[in-house]
Amino acid sequence: MFGNHTRRPGSLPSADAKHKTQLGPEDWIAAATELLVDKSVDAVRVEALSKKLSITRGSFYHHFESRDDLLGRLLTCWRTKATEQIIERFEKRNMKPRDLLRELLMLPAHGGSAKAAAAIELAIRTWARHDKMARQFVDEVDNKRLAYIAQCFSALGFDIGEARMRAFLLYSYQSSESLLFNLDDERRKEERRQFVERLLLRSGQ
Amino acid sequence: MFGNHTRRPGSLPSADAKHKTQLGPEDWIAAATELLVDKSVDAVRVEALSKKLSITRGSFYHHFESRDDLLGRLLTCWRTKATEQIIERFEKRNMKPRDLLRELLMLPAHGGSAKAAAAIELAIRTWARHDKMARQFVDEVDNKRLAYIAQCFSALGFDIGEARMRAFLLYSYQSSESLLFNLDDERRKEERRQFVERLLLRSGQ
Repeated sequence: MFGNHTRRPGSLPSADAKHKTQLGPEDWIAAATELLVDKSVDAVRVEALSKKLSITRGSFYHHFESRDDLLGRLLTCWRTKATEQIIERFEKRNMKPRDLLRELLMLPAHGGSAKAAAAIELAIRTWARHDKMARQFVDEVDNKRLAYIAQCFSALGFDIGEARMRAFLLYSYQSSESLLFNLDDERRKEERRQFVERLLLRSGQ
Repeated sequence: MFGNHTRRPGSLPSADAKHKTQLGPEDWIAAATELLVDKSVDAVRVEALSKKLSITRGSFYHHFESRDDLLGRLLTCWRTKATEQIIERFEKRNMKPRDLLRELLMLPAHGGSAKAAAAIELAIRTWARHDKMARQFVDEVDNKRLAYIAQCFSALGFDIGEARMRAFLLYSYQSSESLLFNLDDERRKEERRQFVERLLLRSGQ
């Protein structure tokens, strides 16, 4: 989907590479994200994290009040990353809406980093099936992304309702390209992207 | 997605309702599916299942060779259910392709049963991120469903390549309506469905 920016699983600094006393909350969050992706939210435990980072449990409580605090900050971190890219593109760069939409259509094709971000997102969505806090974050991120895409379609001249529906289809396309990553070769994926671009971006019905 | 047919979590016969000696492999599979959805594949353990079903571990081995055997049969069961509906609709009923496609577009709106099936599917997709066997099943199911939808589009007169791309978008729409179940009210969802129908089913460009 949007995020090809999230720190990749496996990029966690090892206890050797980074002095233990220098481990910050972001390291705990990265380790927690890895456990979430590789196992499930149930596996994200202070004990398991301390072991993974080769550090005492006590260090955890320097940075977090509780496991729930960690989980909340993991989600906050994900939400920020999953939407900061939106803001950056839309406000700081001076791209035309049509080019922005084209770029959004290309996001799922961004290789390994897109795949890693999609794995994180899938793990969070699964968690959100039975957790209110996670659900709230997921719904918020979906709404922000859709509002952004809809804004681009509005800028192309579609009315608000139509812009929202086109945004939903574009977002669905992005999501499915991530979910069905084994489907078809690069050539077919590219043909599909061009088809979606033609179908959704052309104005006037 | 397709499946609004899968046995809903919570519909597992309790140990009281069904005599223990009558528990068949399908009961173990249903219990395993519940654990998979509520927790993760790691939680699907013979010990936990025996406890859940209030029955000895030994009974498990009457029906399954191993935990892997159970997991394989859970996936086989899901694949059958996720594709039998396709075959039934396409071969046994005598529906026109346009009506079939309309019906497929309406599947995500089938309330609680669609939501339960989507939860199972999401859990299996998450599991498939780090499991070859699960991945194989997921890819196969995706391919079968897409081939079926594409066949309907071909029957409407679209050429094979175009039919496949339209099928991908229709499938993406279904999938996102399931994933983003909290998004918008029923009226808006219905408007969206009609929009997708207009956009994808009209012939000629």
